[in-house]
Amino acid sequence: MAKVPKSVQDLIEAFERLPGIGPKTAERLTYYLLHAPREEAEALANSALNMKDKTRICSICFNITEVDPCDICSDSNRDQSTIMIVENPLDVLALEKANYKGLYHVLHGVIAPLENIGPDDIHIRQLLPRLKRTSSAPASPKLRGASKASEVKEIILATNPTMEGEATAMYIQRLISPLGIKVTRIARGLPVGSDLEYADETTLSRALEGRKEY
Amino acid sequence: MAKVPKSVQDLIEAFERLPGIGPKTAERLTYYLLHAPREEAEALANSALNMKDKTRICSICFNITEVDPCDICSDSNRDQSTIMIVENPLDVLALEKANYKGLYHVLHGVIAPLENIGPDDIHIRQLLPRLKRTSSAPASPKLRGASKASEVKEIILATNPTMEGEATAMYIQRLISPLGIKVTRIARGLPVGSDLEYADETTLSRALEGRKEY
Repeated sequence: MAKVPKSVQDLIEAFERLPGIGPKTAERLTYYLLHAPREEAEALANSALNMKDKTRICSICFNITEVDPCDICSDSNRDQSTIMIVENPLDVLALEKANYKGLYHVLHGVIAPLENIGPDDIHIRQLLPRLKRTSSAPASPKLRGASKASEVKEIILATNPTMEGEATAMYIQRLISPLGIKVTRIARGLPVGSDLEYADETTLSRALEGRKEY
Repeated sequence: MAKVPKSVQDLIEAFERLPGIGPKTAERLTYYLLHAPREEAEALANSALNMKDKTRICSICFNITEVDPCDICSDSNRDQSTIMIVENPLDVLALEKANYKGLYHVLHGVIAPLENIGPDDIHIRQLLPRLKRTSSAPASPKLRGASKASEVKEIILATNPTMEGEATAMYIQRLISPLGIKVTRIARGLPVGSDLEYADETTLSRALEGRKEY
């Protein structure tokens, strides 16, 4: 190891710090860049810095954005009456590809007591002002007309179907229920293209519970 | 996809260009850096550029280095009489960890007719001057004494045990054989910790061919 040039070792270590990149992969990526044209290393370096400089968190939905409020929150063509609650910005990316047309609320984590992450460590409370603006509206019909686009009628809980994701969904459901807004949970069942034979018991029982008339 | 900020998309694409990094992994790495402290993105960016600036190819062994000749070639404590031929700099890294103490010669590829890579496209010819300096030495005992450290007695062919690696090894063996230097090939057999039951036939037959008295 002493024979690896320091600048090479530094890059290997920088890659290793990334999640899911082990020592071998870090070495492979580094040696790839050694052989690649300089422009490729520059593109990686510049876009990493550029992203850190330009991005921020949307003050409404907490998604990653370059402008505040983000493109999604400020898009009046989107369905303002639905807010999908997700764990992190990658989930937004996935849902956009699935053609969801409502709004989001990004928690930036899940409640995980074992890791000392409580409800106040993620963006749960910040959801309430987005809903209360609506629930107080009926008292003032005029105001209601002015902000009709922002009346939230459904909250979709789209945290992951894991222990922590389910617990977080349940916590939010209880928090919101007094407001009288419809709260739904994304379906858990067999993934499309999968094989019933290899599905785990929990997924299978969820798929049974969630069955619909054909 | 239109909803991903451009600076984020740029970094995803830069990651995707790396070998073995698919779209999902590229997204995951990018969103990790979004949450990571700026220093981490800077470390990655700077070390990528720094490496491209500082590294070059050693003019003797063609390994990656910051100084020419490289640390290995200029280390008089290493066994100057053995040269290990490897495909690429990552192999040097692996062999250093295995405590090899001789010199290297990095081919930067293998002969692959299907990909139009011939012997002259990799650093094969450049090996000859390293050997001929020695083989012409016996004619001049004085000169020989001066350069005794660089007398090559063994060439170890350590190209990969693949079709191309074997063909390249064979090509080099034929090229060198007129010089009368001992040429060896690394052993092919069962990897340590593996299970005979799951070994493929070729590996098994190589392991049998290479058996030694116990």
